[in-house]
Amino acid sequence: MVDGTDDLTDLIALMAKLPGLGPRSARRAVLHLIKKRGQLLVPLADAMQRVGANVRECLNCGNIAAGDICNICNDDRRANGEICVVEDVADLWAMERSQQFKGRYHVLGGTLSALDAVGPEDLRIPRLLDRVTSENVTEVILALGATIDGHTTAHYIADQLTGVTVTSLAQGVPVGGELDYLDDGTITAALRARRAL
Amino acid sequence: MVDGTDDLTDLIALMAKLPGLGPRSARRAVLHLIKKRGQLLVPLADAMQRVGANVRECLNCGNIAAGDICNICNDDRRANGEICVVEDVADLWAMERSQQFKGRYHVLGGTLSALDAVGPEDLRIPRLLDRVTSENVTEVILALGATIDGHTTAHYIADQLTGVTVTSLAQGVPVGGELDYLDDGTITAALRARRAL
Repeated sequence: MVDGTDDLTDLIALMAKLPGLGPRSARRAVLHLIKKRGQLLVPLADAMQRVGANVRECLNCGNIAAGDICNICNDDRRANGEICVVEDVADLWAMERSQQFKGRYHVLGGTLSALDAVGPEDLRIPRLLDRVTSENVTEVILALGATIDGHTTAHYIADQLTGVTVTSLAQGVPVGGELDYLDDGTITAALRARRAL
Repeated sequence: MVDGTDDLTDLIALMAKLPGLGPRSARRAVLHLIKKRGQLLVPLADAMQRVGANVRECLNCGNIAAGDICNICNDDRRANGEICVVEDVADLWAMERSQQFKGRYHVLGGTLSALDAVGPEDLRIPRLLDRVTSENVTEVILALGATIDGHTTAHYIADQLTGVTVTSLAQGVPVGGELDYLDDGTITAALRARRAL
């Protein structure tokens, strides 16, 4: 369709594979890139190449790292005995944005799932059990999604961990949430976990 | 925010500049890229570098080309005496998708605009006038947007062109359009241009 320039067709096809972009928005993005060759296309190609070459998974926690070990695992101030278990790096970033958690993370890389045949050894669960012993962990905070697979994974991990406090994020009414728009499950959870004012 | 890996922060900032992506979807896209390093990140970086190195504007018509002259201008079968004038390459692609037009194109690179101080010499209008003479053009089809700037540009070009038929795309009810949802302007244009069945 695009005037024989195969590189362009390739680029559009690859861009269309990004989450949130389809064929139409990929075409628009590529035209924008070509218009801004100096400010955007060339720097973007360079940044991708650098990330492809340098960024890898932290061998300790599964976070994204510039070396073998990520900055959080390298930071001694964060060795406060707390490990927050998350599903993936996006969740870790969300936790970091809240600036509340001062400990370290452990990125599972997914949740247990019977349907998709994901078992404990497919995730980073054995490594978590090692870390709890080797890093003098006192509390493991499970920050997994409030889904069936998330709950299954949380219960599995809690069963494996002994001699350490295991907690999970509170469930309830989200900040700014209106009762009218909340589902029954959330209201039930919030009611059960009600607190004295 | 992202764990000290500056390359990653750069990449997210650049991705967020793409049309249709914001900071949040750029983060999501970058995590997806890192997960699919081999299938997506590396090929995408390569494709961008190739496009940055090889793709340029056709010296004749302003279309995207792999060399100095684009495939359409190089194709003798498309020298049928018709030139379709479009605003930008996205419009050219839209025309090509309809597979109706068999002539050549001329990409203006924008529209005349008093507000943005865009004059005829900022667009590719002088080159269009040259082409009409040198390429034995018999009809110039103005396929510009139905906006005020589009109309201004169309009238300006029509005034400059003498000895050649100048036409523009028909205005009317779009295919699949329901009258109830159409604006007054479109209905007025469609009524004025009504045809005998």
